Amino acid sequence: MQNFTITIEPRFYETDALGHINNASIAAWFEIVRMKFIESLAGSDPALAVHWILASVQIDFVAETFFGTDVTARVTGAKAGNSSLTVLCEMHQGEKLTVKGKAVLVYMDAQTKAPARLPDHLREQLLAD
Amino acid sequence: MQNFTITIEPRFYETDALGHINNASIAAWFEIVRMKFIESLAGSDPALAVHWILASVQIDFVAETFFGTDVTARVTGAKAGNSSLTVLCEMHQGEKLTVKGKAVLVYMDAQTKAPARLPDHLREQLLAD
Amino acid sequence: MQNFTITIEPRFYETDALGHINNASIAAWFEIVRMKFIESLAGSDPALAVHWILASVQIDFVAETFFGTDVTARVTGAKAGNSSLTVLCEMHQGEKLTVKGKAVLVYMDAQTKAPARLPDHLREQLLAD
Amino acid sequence: MQNFTITIEPRFYETDALGHINNASIAAWFEIVRMKFIESLAGSDPALAVHWILASVQIDFVAETFFGTDVTARVTGAKAGNSSLTVLCEMHQGEKLTVKGKAVLVYMDAQTKAPARLPDHLREQLLAD
Repeated sequence: MQNFTITIEPRFYETDALGHINNASIAAWFEIVRMKFIESLAGSDPALAVHWILASVQIDFVAETFFGTDVTARVTGAKAGNSSLTVLCEMHQGEKLTVKGKAVLVYMDAQTKAPARLPDHLREQLLAD
Repeated sequence: MQNFTITIEPRFYETDALGHINNASIAAWFEIVRMKFIESLAGSDPALAVHWILASVQIDFVAETFFGTDVTARVTGAKAGNSSLTVLCEMHQGEKLTVKGKAVLVYMDAQTKAPARLPDHLREQLLAD
Repeated sequence: MQNFTITIEPRFYETDALGHINNASIAAWFEIVRMKFIESLAGSDPALAVHWILASVQIDFVAETFFGTDVTARVTGAKAGNSSLTVLCEMHQGEKLTVKGKAVLVYMDAQTKAPARLPDHLREQLLAD
Repeated sequence: MQNFTITIEPRFYETDALGHINNASIAAWFEIVRMKFIESLAGSDPALAVHWILASVQIDFVAETFFGTDVTARVTGAKAGNSSLTVLCEMHQGEKLTVKGKAVLVYMDAQTKAPARLPDHLREQLLAD
């Protein structure tokens, strides 16, 4: 799997009265990361970018995230199941690890709206170095 | 026009690092007020509740709004144009006026997706005392 | 532990273009549930309500949540560690289980800003039927 | 006044069930624009960037904004009052004007927490071409 990283600039309204970025904003950021990662895999298959549902998300808030400094979100792993894709993510602010996330997405058949087997070219990309 | 009031309980994640409710959260609350007000007018005409677009919104932040105390949002006026509806709103926290809002919505024909004349029964409700 | 339930009315702006409530909005709702649950435990000890940080959150999206119908969020379990509190939650929309959540919070000493032992009266409440 | 423009990439969770970006998300984007604009004026006076409250905001939703295409937000005017600053903004998606915004901010004295006269160097910057 290729290294996949995006930069997120915290927004003031994403802070809360504790003076840091609220946990729900970070859950929202994780959606950006996942979607862009899948988009990057989709390549010449645009349909691939959209037919997913989120089955579960797990977020460890390792350290506080603050307004004023960019956050680097990196996909640290991605594993294909039969119809599911597990995406691991780490966020750093400066040198500090602030967030570890894990999401499980399910690939849906556009017609039947039922879980479908992940396309082979996506599996290959995940296995490629 | 009948008095129309709803209660909004501020949520912690709606605060920002200044320790008060963020202005964008208040813009979002105003959507709740407008939608529930229009729903209350729609009565036996459910289609009426949904075919609107927001043309403009104006919000005066008269005083800060804080977490921990309910907000009362009241529609203080509503005026029908040909295809537009102007909704005025005031929010109070405790005795204090905190927000004054004005929104202009446009009624859309469901088929043509073009602005349409407001239904007469809605005009009558707005004129009724 | 007493049964603890709150009702959440989905807001239109919490939907996304897939036509359902976005996962980040549900992560945000879970904060409401946790905070109100802890507030209910705090009772005569108001300080108890505030000195917490969120260590991790896990959310299973069992079924889609839609705009237009209230959601019932129930705390189905709460377990005290030394300085941590694990809160389990289920959300239903109508009869349907839509969300299962688990959050781990850490109790912080207000002065030292370090994790502190959970107060005994809170432990007792969690053990009481 | 120098031309001031930023680019905003719409996020999926900022859409709503109507399939476009929700109005409250656009109100939130406007905060990003204002804050970055003021930051750009503050230059060597970091305190200047933070001591502001939002008095009012007016947003015209000229056309729908969609997910998938960057938005360009440009400050089209800024006028200094005694202690107030009015900021005008236009957002375009592609070639299309989608949003016109106007915000009135008040400059606050950090000590007294009362409105204060805008610093002269800020006035000069706004007058400079």
